[in-house]
Amino acid sequence: MIKAAILGYGVVGSGVYEIIHKNEKSISRKTGGKTITVKHILDLRDFPDHEQPELFTKNYEDILHDPEVSIVVEVMGGLKPAYEYSKAALLAGKNVITSNKELVAEHGTELMAIAKEHDVNYLFEASVGGGIPIIRPLNQCLAANEIEEIYGILNGTTNYILTKMVAEGADFDGALSEAQRLGYAERNPEADVEGYDACRKIAILASLASGKYVNWRNVPTEGITKITRSDVAFAEKYHAVIKLVGAAKIVDGEVYCRVSPMVIPAGHQLSEVNDVFNAILVKGDSIGDVMFYGRGAGKLPTASAVVADVIDAAKHIHINKFITWKEAKEDFMIDPETVTSRYFVRANSEGVMDSFPNAESLGNENGEWFFVTEEMTEAEFKKVFADRGAFIRVLEA
Amino acid sequence: MIKAAILGYGVVGSGVYEIIHKNEKSISRKTGGKTITVKHILDLRDFPDHEQPELFTKNYEDILHDPEVSIVVEVMGGLKPAYEYSKAALLAGKNVITSNKELVAEHGTELMAIAKEHDVNYLFEASVGGGIPIIRPLNQCLAANEIEEIYGILNGTTNYILTKMVAEGADFDGALSEAQRLGYAERNPEADVEGYDACRKIAILASLASGKYVNWRNVPTEGITKITRSDVAFAEKYHAVIKLVGAAKIVDGEVYCRVSPMVIPAGHQLSEVNDVFNAILVKGDSIGDVMFYGRGAGKLPTASAVVADVIDAAKHIHINKFITWKEAKEDFMIDPETVTSRYFVRANSEGVMDSFPNAESLGNENGEWFFVTEEMTEAEFKKVFADRGAFIRVLEA
Repeated sequence: MIKAAILGYGVVGSGVYEIIHKNEKSISRKTGGKTITVKHILDLRDFPDHEQPELFTKNYEDILHDPEVSIVVEVMGGLKPAYEYSKAALLAGKNVITSNKELVAEHGTELMAIAKEHDVNYLFEASVGGGIPIIRPLNQCLAANEIEEIYGILNGTTNYILTKMVAEGADFDGALSEAQRLGYAERNPEADVEGYDACRKIAILASLASGKYVNWRNVPTEGITKITRSDVAFAEKYHAVIKLVGAAKIVDGEVYCRVSPMVIPAGHQLSEVNDVFNAILVKGDSIGDVMFYGRGAGKLPTASAVVADVIDAAKHIHINKFITWKEAKEDFMIDPETVTSRYFVRANSEGVMDSFPNAESLGNENGEWFFVTEEMTEAEFKKVFADRGAFIRVLEA
Repeated sequence: MIKAAILGYGVVGSGVYEIIHKNEKSISRKTGGKTITVKHILDLRDFPDHEQPELFTKNYEDILHDPEVSIVVEVMGGLKPAYEYSKAALLAGKNVITSNKELVAEHGTELMAIAKEHDVNYLFEASVGGGIPIIRPLNQCLAANEIEEIYGILNGTTNYILTKMVAEGADFDGALSEAQRLGYAERNPEADVEGYDACRKIAILASLASGKYVNWRNVPTEGITKITRSDVAFAEKYHAVIKLVGAAKIVDGEVYCRVSPMVIPAGHQLSEVNDVFNAILVKGDSIGDVMFYGRGAGKLPTASAVVADVIDAAKHIHINKFITWKEAKEDFMIDPETVTSRYFVRANSEGVMDSFPNAESLGNENGEWFFVTEEMTEAEFKKVFADRGAFIRVLEA
């Protein structure tokens, strides 16, 4: 019998409770006969109508000092007090499972090291891609590969907005309002639409793939707020769609990492990922391209990823799984200005295209000229472009 | 230091050797510092130009009785002598890793049980989907889910042929010749084009998902040899493509399983999987739809899946991972005639459609009438249809 505690009884926390109860029998089969039960739930709120009100506590000490609890599920979000709580649990020899991308991206290195020292696990499958298995596949299933590139549609809110803009010709504000009305976007949508959420996620994936901690602060991040209806329409003329992409490349141990809108040509697997779905395309040196697709958010999908980690922890009580990356001393981040791409340009005057003799023109509308440049480094491009409009990088097949 | 032996130095075996050598450092990082080396290679052929000719042996006893060897990689294919060799290795307390779908589909139940008794592992990630992670995700990442449905494009050869038929209007024989010329299809293509390969694979996935051994002999299997150019053209009129699909549904512990061509409407994720690529769509009760996409065959993709299992075994020396299913006594296979579907029909006379008052007509050509029926059980459909032509089941979104 394995006893778990849940920190935070919000959307994901209640989903975790629900799945552990509903699928008890099949979960027990997968742990080799061990039953997993929830012994405590930490939340400052009261849940008088809950079927097991006796599980709730407002005092973390009840969990931390309960020697029966071997697994702590942290689904509070944010850094405080999630960081202190997680650290204390690991130091006390308990496994910690989390969906908290902010915490993993900020303190994951330390928490994984503590887990390793104490022969327990700090697992975070749900922190990236919601229900889509990606952390475990990267770490285990693709373990025989050197990972060369990762391209992810990592944020469901922005993907929903961009899908609306393509399908209905909506503008950004209209599509955002619709997303808010449907509960896909928060009242304050900044973390999603400015790319901050995707930034934490690609930083985690790049850290795992390279083995070196990629600090999210070093990941250049642009959101989708400046994308116009014309951008979407002229991208369509180019047989492409615009998506928010978290990209990472690993070249000889050096890492390039960026979050930005990208123009994705039709036929590319990521071009077909619509609505709130997420997908992560991984290129390994042996496997080539492999893609993982599914629901990147939502109560049960995310909780299902958390519970998969709970089951894994239950199978590895006191065995560290070596999911880890290290703090690297040297500077290993590739200067993003040296990376090459083609650029989809919305120029503010007809003359801009003359500066790019090999550009492919897409036409013009309302005093804006659209074209796609040849491949060049970002430094070269920016020097010639000189801020005469806006641009979006093109993702090659 | 973990010592492995490779049985069979063909395409996959040589790929396994290559990856273990090339990625030694990153593999060691993923096992927590253990180095994996190949100590023996069993093959009846001579490889005098190999960089390590001293590894080769023609005598399996050299491997079986070497106490240093803890991992045996069986990539010989076929049942004989792979079955005896695998069983002997497990009984001797060695882990066995395989890409041999035929053996897993036939004797997997027994081999996994022996592995469990001897605290070792019998792992077979590479047996389905080549390089695509699917066995481990089904077993671990989606462990919190009751799996409800699986739809897989599991055979690259047939998918290449069908993609050619759609893209170039080729007929089956022409597309097959082209696939053979490119090395995507074997001289004797029967195992692929008749669906036998996909049958073994969906039987393995259905066994894992349900926990009960699904004997491949109980999986109704149709290949793609009877699909005509007109079928492809009229499917296109219906905004759909034809693919060979391995399907499994699990309802209250009962299992439906079938391999057949299916008409897949545009917009469905599987409709976009082309050429030699494979994809597996899984529906779980918590996660909803999740899809895994990548190269289903080929030297390095398949070897990369084998080596991922080698790494996993190296991390779990003498810890059984509980990947298993059981031989079920009762009859748990759902009668396929009771399952409902819509049917894409190629009728041999105009009158056939009159028997289906709610059918959607797609037109006619050269004395063949094409239409899609409403949803009904297969028994009902067949009774009315009375073999007046041919039909393909429609996959719903």
